[in-house]
Amino acid sequence: MPAALVHNAYGKSQVRLTKVQRRPDRHDLIDWSIEVRLEGDFSAAFINGDNRHVVATDTMKNIVYALARDHDLAAPETFGLILGRHFLDSYPQVTSAGIYVTVQPWQRVDAAGQPLPHAFVAGPPGRQWRLAALTRKRAQVTAGIERLPLLKTADSAFRGFYRDNFTTLRETDDRIMATDLTAEWLYAGVEVNWDESYATVYRALIETFAGHRSLGVQQTLYAMGEAALAACPAVTEITLTMPNRHRILVDLSPFQRDNPNEVFVTTDEPFGTITGTLKRSG
Amino acid sequence: MPAALVHNAYGKSQVRLTKVQRRPDRHDLIDWSIEVRLEGDFSAAFINGDNRHVVATDTMKNIVYALARDHDLAAPETFGLILGRHFLDSYPQVTSAGIYVTVQPWQRVDAAGQPLPHAFVAGPPGRQWRLAALTRKRAQVTAGIERLPLLKTADSAFRGFYRDNFTTLRETDDRIMATDLTAEWLYAGVEVNWDESYATVYRALIETFAGHRSLGVQQTLYAMGEAALAACPAVTEITLTMPNRHRILVDLSPFQRDNPNEVFVTTDEPFGTITGTLKRSG
Amino acid sequence: MPAALVHNAYGKSQVRLTKVQRRPDRHDLIDWSIEVRLEGDFSAAFINGDNRHVVATDTMKNIVYALARDHDLAAPETFGLILGRHFLDSYPQVTSAGIYVTVQPWQRVDAAGQPLPHAFVAGPPGRQWRLAALTRKRAQVTAGIERLPLLKTADSAFRGFYRDNFTTLRETDDRIMATDLTAEWLYAGVEVNWDESYATVYRALIETFAGHRSLGVQQTLYAMGEAALAACPAVTEITLTMPNRHRILVDLSPFQRDNPNEVFVTTDEPFGTITGTLKRSG
Amino acid sequence: MPAALVHNAYGKSQVRLTKVQRRPDRHDLIDWSIEVRLEGDFSAAFINGDNRHVVATDTMKNIVYALARDHDLAAPETFGLILGRHFLDSYPQVTSAGIYVTVQPWQRVDAAGQPLPHAFVAGPPGRQWRLAALTRKRAQVTAGIERLPLLKTADSAFRGFYRDNFTTLRETDDRIMATDLTAEWLYAGVEVNWDESYATVYRALIETFAGHRSLGVQQTLYAMGEAALAACPAVTEITLTMPNRHRILVDLSPFQRDNPNEVFVTTDEPFGTITGTLKRSG
Repeated sequence: MPAALVHNAYGKSQVRLTKVQRRPDRHDLIDWSIEVRLEGDFSAAFINGDNRHVVATDTMKNIVYALARDHDLAAPETFGLILGRHFLDSYPQVTSAGIYVTVQPWQRVDAAGQPLPHAFVAGPPGRQWRLAALTRKRAQVTAGIERLPLLKTADSAFRGFYRDNFTTLRETDDRIMATDLTAEWLYAGVEVNWDESYATVYRALIETFAGHRSLGVQQTLYAMGEAALAACPAVTEITLTMPNRHRILVDLSPFQRDNPNEVFVTTDEPFGTITGTLKRSG
Repeated sequence: MPAALVHNAYGKSQVRLTKVQRRPDRHDLIDWSIEVRLEGDFSAAFINGDNRHVVATDTMKNIVYALARDHDLAAPETFGLILGRHFLDSYPQVTSAGIYVTVQPWQRVDAAGQPLPHAFVAGPPGRQWRLAALTRKRAQVTAGIERLPLLKTADSAFRGFYRDNFTTLRETDDRIMATDLTAEWLYAGVEVNWDESYATVYRALIETFAGHRSLGVQQTLYAMGEAALAACPAVTEITLTMPNRHRILVDLSPFQRDNPNEVFVTTDEPFGTITGTLKRSG
Repeated sequence: MPAALVHNAYGKSQVRLTKVQRRPDRHDLIDWSIEVRLEGDFSAAFINGDNRHVVATDTMKNIVYALARDHDLAAPETFGLILGRHFLDSYPQVTSAGIYVTVQPWQRVDAAGQPLPHAFVAGPPGRQWRLAALTRKRAQVTAGIERLPLLKTADSAFRGFYRDNFTTLRETDDRIMATDLTAEWLYAGVEVNWDESYATVYRALIETFAGHRSLGVQQTLYAMGEAALAACPAVTEITLTMPNRHRILVDLSPFQRDNPNEVFVTTDEPFGTITGTLKRSG
Repeated sequence: MPAALVHNAYGKSQVRLTKVQRRPDRHDLIDWSIEVRLEGDFSAAFINGDNRHVVATDTMKNIVYALARDHDLAAPETFGLILGRHFLDSYPQVTSAGIYVTVQPWQRVDAAGQPLPHAFVAGPPGRQWRLAALTRKRAQVTAGIERLPLLKTADSAFRGFYRDNFTTLRETDDRIMATDLTAEWLYAGVEVNWDESYATVYRALIETFAGHRSLGVQQTLYAMGEAALAACPAVTEITLTMPNRHRILVDLSPFQRDNPNEVFVTTDEPFGTITGTLKRSG
């Protein structure tokens, strides 16, 4: 029949790994969810049901746990690269391997101002992830954060925008700007201090959001991307997506009250969405 | 500073529209969530905070509701094309417009075997959506369904797969195959009977899943894609994604019971994921 | 220390059971999630860490799967009663057992108008559940549905309500009424035709919602409860909870358009919530 | 017809309030979601559709925003009591009012070690809430937290539990204990330093979880409740619910590897659930 299989991929999702690394003075806690995704010479399985090249996804799961035993798990990026290389090295039919690691953040519980060695409480919101994408010729690492809530109550204006018959929005010099930041950034190469780079980008994004005198979400987004590129030379490209979590000023005049930019309705929808990709240049 | 804005887009998400179309003998109910996404000449807003070209996302929302009043809403595809053309026609700075419509399915309540004219109960699961993507030169429509649960208790084997030291999975001739089907398909052109085509693809997918003697998820996926292309000539390409919602046979031998393929643990994770894209050829 | 343990309970949640019951002409598919919850003489475990009376929740899980093998699974209510009696009969320290069964609805796939014997697609929304609560002296069964979307576009008014300085809502004779129905009902005794009773209550609720000339959600809720009690003599009490999923008429006058009750904003929040419990009397 | 309305209540849910309180040196940010729930003389609305006593839920929403303007919003408990009293004082038909406040936690962004005055990032997970429940005779405040992830990698055993033919779980002296803590506690009276009390209970719960040498979840739960009562004299009763977020040791022996309590599968289901209520006594 006149159909061609133009793309295919498969793998195992949500392989959930907890590892306790027992140090002399403390335990380190790893809590990751790992996805393996392979591409390669698998079309016979699709077209004829010939599974001879198919590495069962159950086998992929076994490999994740076995290699987690073999290696000291430092950064998720490192383990992603180890896993990706394993699949390429073990299976000639595989041409590319993607290892996507989602990090469940935990932080040590403090008691009397000191971190305890064995007890943890959930870390901050914002889903952190890393992706190691490998072929036999190259390896590429991406990192990101999903839906980190940020809000500022000053230094946010929106005026001078296009107006026509469908425009009812008022211009403002003083609004609340709130977003759930999603960002992903690409590293140049794999010789990177992963944890330090992640922290640097994260800090640059939040501090720029906080400190920027904003004329619009677009401008703030661009400033945040620029700051991330400036702060972390290992990053070569960054994409930011910022929903506009609108706060709507409540009209209290029916109740004989003014509202000097104080009381707002928090809304989830509809929401604006702005996205932009910045690349290091020059 | 050495950064280039290599891509940008923005729009309004989750513009939720309910419309009641009052016919002589019944009400038709439309319940859609609409996303507008524009690309074009907007870089000044990002780089300089110059918003003169920016159509406020609030204005986009107004346009959705106003045009919903102007038009009889038949298929979501038709309204998507109307909206997309409006944005291209009204704003020279816009070079492409994407209108993404998610459909909340409702079905008429029956009483005494007859459909009632004004009352509705939620339709079947599986999130249905349509996307009209337009530039000044072309228009392209995609449709899809997300996470439709399907399950079969017979005609599913998995054997002959690759084995190595990390393989523990047993071969089987008789397993439960369960998935949450996600599919998207692209139409050739815009002169299509949208509702009929959607129903045809939907039926081809479900019936092929149900009737296929499966040697693996890959093979079933391919057969489903082939069937959809065969059933609906307007479709030029289809991508299917099928997580493998594993049912694990319970070992009841510690409790002095056999388990002749009857009692299973339903699992959500980890899960296999298989994806493939088929294109009409020849 | 001056603290008393005034209540305690424990159990296993989300024991997910799939069972295939192989009939001569077809397979029956069971897909339930089961929660076991025990009360009894367990305070030593809380106060002293003395676990001698504690039935491990892992053991509860084993029992669910083993008994699912032993019995033909008809209604979830029947299996709930079997499980509850097992816990009371096996463990003298248990004084009460609650078995909560959530039903994943599946329906057979049709091909050429005939139901297929082995293939299933997800059934309608609305989470269905049953609860069998047993002590050594009595057994009580409750059934329910959670969040079933219902909507009507006619026969819904809201007027004559209390007005004061904080009231801005207009009276209306013609609004959309939409809800996500949650209902739970209690049976008198355990000699009940479970599946038939469930279907009867379900139909009474939906048809009354659909056919009622509503003066308010409160009145419709009451009429639905009355109808359920009238339709199913085995039901002795019913509680309904109906959020008011408001559709807000869009003001299109800024865009030189009228809006004769046609175009609405669908809103998720805020929402009204109305709840009421009706008991059979007289 | 033979039905009696034995209970009813209604109100407005998810009234989402953002308030910016502008201090000389900083902005304070309030981000709450408020539910109002009234009981009283409303049966005529249910039985006859007579809405004369019905305060529209839209009016409740208006009251929340208007009173949010009138008052400096300190603790959510205080505003809950103000709102509850308003409903009782304004509407004679109301006999009880419950005001449930969910708190969206935000924390100030730090720059160079100093908190910024106008910028915020999401605070820690765990949904915090307060409930003020008032009648004309008394007022009662409850506070709680939902699903705060906690985990410890040492000091957790589970042995000496009941064994029978269905028991396969091994005893252990060294397991991971993980939970999503849900707690609610009741205050004696309303003359309480709300924020300080909340922080005291929160800290007592986390530190006791962290420091306890556990013989079982039941024992740890009890110790946490005892510690909360001991730390905060204003609390008279506390209920804790602790799901057991099992980590399952992976059997690596098929892959010729040992696993000295290092590599675990993180599981979401099934899970044990333990709950207990402690009351101050003596």
